[in-house]
Formats: sequence, structure tokens, C-alpha cells
Amino acid sequence: MIILLNSDTPHYLQIYNHIKSEITTDHLRVNDKLPSIRKLAEFLGISTTPVELAYQLLVSEGFVDSRPRAGYFVQNIPEPYARLEFQQENRQALAPVYPSRDRHVYPYDFHMSKIDRAAFPIKTWRKLYSETLFDEQFELDYGNPQGEAGLRQEIAQYLHQFRGVQCSPEQIVIAGDQSFLIFILSSLLQQDFKELAIENPGYFLIPSLFRRMGYSILPIPLHQEGINVEHLYESGARLVVTTPSHQFPTGTTMSRERRWALLEWADKKNGYIIEDDYDGEFRYYGEPLPSLQGLTPNPNVIYLGGFSQVLAPAISIHYMVLPQNLLEDYHRLRIQLMLEQSASRMQQITLQRFIERGFLAKHVRKMRQLYKEKHDRLLFSIEKYLNKTVTVIGRDAGFHLLVKVNDSRSSEELVALAKDKGVRVANGAFYWSQPLEPPTTIMIGFAGIPLDLIEEGIKALANAWYSSS
Amino acid sequence: MIILLNSDTPHYLQIYNHIKSEITTDHLRVNDKLPSIRKLAEFLGISTTPVELAYQLLVSEGFVDSRPRAGYFVQNIPEPYARLEFQQENRQALAPVYPSRDRHVYPYDFHMSKIDRAAFPIKTWRKLYSETLFDEQFELDYGNPQGEAGLRQEIAQYLHQFRGVQCSPEQIVIAGDQSFLIFILSSLLQQDFKELAIENPGYFLIPSLFRRMGYSILPIPLHQEGINVEHLYESGARLVVTTPSHQFPTGTTMSRERRWALLEWADKKNGYIIEDDYDGEFRYYGEPLPSLQGLTPNPNVIYLGGFSQVLAPAISIHYMVLPQNLLEDYHRLRIQLMLEQSASRMQQITLQRFIERGFLAKHVRKMRQLYKEKHDRLLFSIEKYLNKTVTVIGRDAGFHLLVKVNDSRSSEELVALAKDKGVRVANGAFYWSQPLEPPTTIMIGFAGIPLDLIEEGIKALANAWYSSS
Repeated sequence: MIILLNSDTPHYLQIYNHIKSEITTDHLRVNDKLPSIRKLAEFLGISTTPVELAYQLLVSEGFVDSRPRAGYFVQNIPEPYARLEFQQENRQALAPVYPSRDRHVYPYDFHMSKIDRAAFPIKTWRKLYSETLFDEQFELDYGNPQGEAGLRQEIAQYLHQFRGVQCSPEQIVIAGDQSFLIFILSSLLQQDFKELAIENPGYFLIPSLFRRMGYSILPIPLHQEGINVEHLYESGARLVVTTPSHQFPTGTTMSRERRWALLEWADKKNGYIIEDDYDGEFRYYGEPLPSLQGLTPNPNVIYLGGFSQVLAPAISIHYMVLPQNLLEDYHRLRIQLMLEQSASRMQQITLQRFIERGFLAKHVRKMRQLYKEKHDRLLFSIEKYLNKTVTVIGRDAGFHLLVKVNDSRSSEELVALAKDKGVRVANGAFYWSQPLEPPTTIMIGFAGIPLDLIEEGIKALANAWYSSS
Repeated sequence: MIILLNSDTPHYLQIYNHIKSEITTDHLRVNDKLPSIRKLAEFLGISTTPVELAYQLLVSEGFVDSRPRAGYFVQNIPEPYARLEFQQENRQALAPVYPSRDRHVYPYDFHMSKIDRAAFPIKTWRKLYSETLFDEQFELDYGNPQGEAGLRQEIAQYLHQFRGVQCSPEQIVIAGDQSFLIFILSSLLQQDFKELAIENPGYFLIPSLFRRMGYSILPIPLHQEGINVEHLYESGARLVVTTPSHQFPTGTTMSRERRWALLEWADKKNGYIIEDDYDGEFRYYGEPLPSLQGLTPNPNVIYLGGFSQVLAPAISIHYMVLPQNLLEDYHRLRIQLMLEQSASRMQQITLQRFIERGFLAKHVRKMRQLYKEKHDRLLFSIEKYLNKTVTVIGRDAGFHLLVKVNDSRSSEELVALAKDKGVRVANGAFYWSQPLEPPTTIMIGFAGIPLDLIEEGIKALANAWYSSS
């Protein structure tokens, strides 16, 4: 067991992650003995504290067993260790620990949430930032806690144009990250709602925060055309989070009938739909799908968006669109908590100018073309090298393809094999919750990887999975 | 009653704020009848909804009484409407609504949290931002959720040099705003703590968020030398938030003896001290006071700081320093909630370069000199124009003076009189909690106002308060 410590991440986490990945990739097997805390610390040239922390974490999660006077031994991999366990009986249960960000450098990086850096308009952005800074009207004091009024106006117009969202600037709340918006939203709804229904499979960021705020999470299985509305009725929930434009991770698009059924559900239940439109601008084939929010004049829809995918995560600007009937409560909460702006005013005003002068619309069109080419190249390469062994589940939109692998090996194992050959793909099984059994699925992102490397990368992936068999 | 609506703030809030301030400044008196909802809406040329919302809010807070078939009538001003009511018996009580930000333009603006814009090194900042953007090493993808490693390193060094804080970069957590840090911190401590002790009087941002997260708030009266540690023992609390370097709002400095007593309390109770060091760099007289955090090698202190005062609020970068023994829980929570960076990476790296190359140290020295001059000019002016009528309570540090006014009029009334003459000062009484009776106190900030306007401004203030008497 060789661990190379870097200074970027706490040592205990590096040790913990390393051992865990050794276990999940079968390099360490059941009943293998770990080195003693003292020995490993000596070997790494660090104090025993981080090693002890790492071992404790592994024990508490069931990866490792501590046997008195004998030492630490590898256990069976706890199932399902990498998924949230939505136990209704045990709401206080400690959520499992997710793997930390992988800092390994991959020649073929099919990461899901990277962007194409080369396409970012650095010069324009620099110019607009500079203008902002030197503008005598621009203030360096605390800004509007809800977000700069001018930026909210631009976002309202942009959303109308690109996503069919109907809202006024007053309805938009801006923050530096999505979690903070979710904190505000979950606080806002806390008096009237106790449960949040989610799509199963789905992304865990929003439910994790709602759960922390005391909500119960109700996973609702997906139908072919989106969330199963009948199940939603049965669940008793009045609040649901959904990704109608491009379901995460399956890539399904919600049909028109189902959209209307969902809106009707919210209306009947006097509840809300939280529409997470994380990649709504990026549909490459078929007719464009406007947001659910814009379908009815005053719907019970809370719309979530941001500029991470459309521009760059580094900008740190996210927003939500609240329905009119939540605005009073929002302002009450904002004032009560003495909230201040959470996204840099310099960045906000720069972004405002960027939208105002048409650069964002232009950028979206350009990126849509570029990502379409990458999407096509990826599909082509999968067909060429992995045709008989995988099935592409979702396509035609977004920044990744989900593939189902016809294999007796686990998703974890396939990810690890790919890593060995310098290919980063992600474990799709991660997003399934109980009671569903996660299929062997792999997420292949295409936004960040250069166009020219896609085919090579998929060839390397095929090689990693099938060369020795 | 004339209300001019602007488009920057929701209409109902403008109406609400206007009527409330008319009541608190005695322009509307008990039993005065408000215009009907329909009439006011017609007069303003808007729909009835915002007017109705505003009236509802006023009724719910006790400013206005709704009498069936008769209309809406002004009530006695609810006491203490502008202070948090920390009722232990009624933890679910709705907190009162605080006044929204005042957008009035004042010739003499003694605002507490404005900075001197002219002194901000725009050119340097622009240059470093530009360097960051064009640096090929700089990534536009998601950054470290804890904050950029390089910036954390610079902050650790800076804090050591300027505040005597002892920490490694691993202990620092960076966010785009303070409330989000407080959300993380209160989540982190939720399992072990149910109560938060606070200084009375004190700033409400931190307790408001803790209360929202389910904590009970225990206000502890101040002793002359800082928080009363005996009361703290009696309260049963094991967690306290304090401002030892420069108590907010009184300006008291915690004595050495009391610092050690407080550290001993935390150690005995196995609890934590949250040290809010919002203006620790700015002490103009007396010996420099290092942070509480640095006093003992591994203290139970959580240190809070940021760059709003030291540089500019618009930058939106705040941080906390966690003790080693909270790091494991922090990483667990961070991973569980799938937190991402909340402060723009561009701003973070720009700030990192700014500190690295010594610009921050230089800026702090320059601002300390400039603010000292302003502080002195303010003291001088108060002595000259308000000598016999006010007592300066806190001085020699920070960005404001708190003055006690020997007057039978209320703080609200004095603030309103000042406003009429174009002078912005703030109500100090706002920061006192029950059971203490708030004294008639006024906060006079000096950081934002130009040096040359201070004397004139205080003269105008004296005039506003005493010219007609």
C-alpha cells in the first residue's frame, strides 16, 4: 500500500480515500490486515493523529473492523455505501461519506461538470470586469442581498428568451453557490412542508441539504417519460424537485402530458415543483423544450439555474426564481437572518454587462454548436468501440451520456479499470436510491474533454474494459 | 402620506417601510386611519396585492390594527419592535422584521459598514485579476469547496502576522458570505450543542442564523471588561459568540484576565468560543491586542473573519478558522452536503496574489492611518459640538463610536431628526436584548465618510438635535 501525500488535501482524508478506493477496487480484500496506526504514520513521516482519524472514519462506515489487540481488518464493502440511505424510520441516520474530489490527472478526462476552457471569452470578460471596477457609479460597499437589480433584470430577460421562463427581476434571488440558495429555499418552505419528493435516480445535492434542514426525503421512481406522477400522488408529498428538461442522470425528457400532469398535481396539492434546469440551454436534437416554469402564467414552480455550465463554475453565480406568492416570506427571512450579498458584486456587475451586450447569447449559441459536435463524436466513438457491450440511455442534450454496461463486473470496478488506463468516467450507480437496485451504469461527460481526444479516449476505455478478457 | 415607488425594491416592502417609518417617527400617530387598500393602490397606480401584503405585515407586527368594516388604524409602537425577542419559552416565535436597507442619499453619511472607496487600490486589483484570468494554470472549473489552497495559505500567514492567530491552511474554510459560514458552523455543532450564548448588547447576524437552525439563544450581559463569565457559567451554555478585540456595539476591549477566564470556561465545559474578529486589525491607541484564538496552543476557539472591512464588502470573501478537532466533522458535512466553492475562484486567486505580494499588509497599514485620522476628527468634533449632551462609550478602535445621549427623546427619534438634516447615524438601542433596557444610544460610523466632511456632519447633527430646543 503506497500513499503519496500532497499538501492540498488534509492528510487523514488522503489516507482514508486511498484505503477506501483500495477496498472498493479489490486491491485490499476481506480480512486483509491494515498496517498499525503507528507504523503507517512512521512510514508517511507524519503524526499518528491523521492516520487515526482516517481509520476511525473507515471503521465508522463499515469498511474496516477494529479488533482489540489484533489490529484493523478489511470488511466486506458495505452495501450500498455510496448511496444515500433514505430510511424513513431513521431520519437522524448519518449520511454516508462520498468520495472526495479526484485530483488524479487523466489523459482522457470525461468529467461530467468540466467546461471547455479554451472557449471561454477571457478578453471580453477581462474588459467588462475592468470597466466595472473603474465605473464611478460602481460601489464597493455591501450590495443588494437579493442580488444586483441590474443583473436580475438581465437574467429575467435571458431566461425568457432562452428558457421561456416568465418572471420579473423581483422574483430572482442570486447567490454565490447553489447550496446557499437551497438553504434559503428550505428555510422558506419549512413551516408548510416536511417532505421533499425526489427523482430516483437523481442528483443528491438538493435532497442532502433539505434533509439536513429536517425534511424527510421521498424517492419517487422514474417513468420512461419522467417522474411517475401516480407515485407522487401516493407518496403524500406536496413538494418535489425535478429535472424535466434533461433528467439527471438518465437523460430522459419529460413529455408534455407529464409536465401538465405534474403542474396539475402541484396545483391540486397546493404545493411546489422545484425545477432544476441545470442544462436547459443545451439540447442538440429535437424541438427545443421550454422550462416547466413558463408553461402556466402563475405556476407553483420554483426555478433553479446558474452560470456554471453556461459560462464557468469559477464565476460562482447561481440563482432561483421564486413564485410571487413566496416573495413576502423570502423578504421576511432575508431581513430576519440579516443576509448580505453572497456573490461578489464585481462579478455580478461584470456578468450583467456580459448579458446586456449580447455576449452571453452569443456564447450559448457557440457552446451549443461545440458541445453538439462533442456529443456526436462521443456517440460515434461509443458505437465504434463499445457497440455490443453498452447501451446508451440518455442522449441529445446536456453534457454527459449515461451508458448501461452489459457486464457482470460492478460500476466501481469499471471506473477503476478505466482509471488505470488514464480514462476518467464516473459511476452512474451512485445516483440510485433504495429500494431500486442500481444498474451497472457509467457516466461519460463530454463538455470538458477536447474534441480531438474523444475517439482516442473511448478506444482506451474499450481497451481498459475488454483487452484482457 | 406620499410614497414614491422605485423599481429597485418590491412595492409592498417600500409601502411597508414607509408606513412603518412614519409611525416610528411619529408622523403617523395612534388611531390615525390609513387609506383603504383600494385607494392607496389606485393612488400609486399599482395592483392591490402589494398594498395588501404591506398592510398584513404591519398588522402582524402590531403597528397597525385591522378593524372590520372600519379600516386600518395605527397602533402604539410595539415594544421592543426592533429587537430580537429571545423568549426561551417560545422558541418558535416569529422574529421581528428589521428595517430594510436605507437607500436615501445623505450629505453626511456616518454609515457603520461603508469603506473609503477612494483608498481602494483599483489598479492593483485590476492587474492581479487580469493576471489570474490569463494564467494558464488557472482553472475555470469547480474549485476546492473549502476555498483555494493557495489563498488559505496566505490567509493563515496574514492572520498570524496581524492577529496572532495560530492555524494551518487546513483549518481555514472560505465562503462568499458570512451567513453561509454560519450555516456550516451551526450544522457542524448541531449534534453536541443546543444553546448559543451571546453578548448583550451584540450583533444579531450570528444568533439569528443559529436560532433558525434550532438553537436557543442565551443573551449574557456585558461586564465593563467584556462578557460576564460568571453569568456564562450560570447560563449552562457551552457555546458562546464574542467580540473580544472590540465589542460590538459598545467598543469595550476584553481584559487579559477575562480572556483567560473565558478560555478556561470553554476548556472546563468542553465547549467552544466563537471569536468574531470583524475589525481586529483596526486599533488606533493602546497596545495591540492579538486574537483570543492565538492565546493557547490548541484552544477551543472558532475564529471568524473576512475581507469586507479590511478591503471591500464587494469582494465577498469571508472565512472561519476551525480547531483541529472539528476538521473531521467539517469534511464529513462538506461531503455529505456536496458543497462546492461559494466564493468566485477568480476573486479568490486575485486576493491570494494581493496578499502574497504584500499589498494587503500595505493596505491595512494605510487604512489604519486613514481611519485613525477619521476617528480622531470625529472625537474632536463630538467634543466640540456635542460635548455636554453625549457620552462617548467605545473608542480607539474599529469603524464607529457609540454615544450615549442624555436626552428624553428616543434613539429612533434622534435618528429621524438627523435624517431630516441629511445626516445618517444609526440606532444603537437596536442591539440590546431583553431583559436589558436599551439606553438612548447612537452609532456614528466614520470609515466611509470623507475626512473633510466629519466636522461639518457633526455640526449638522448637533443642529438637528438641538437647534429648535
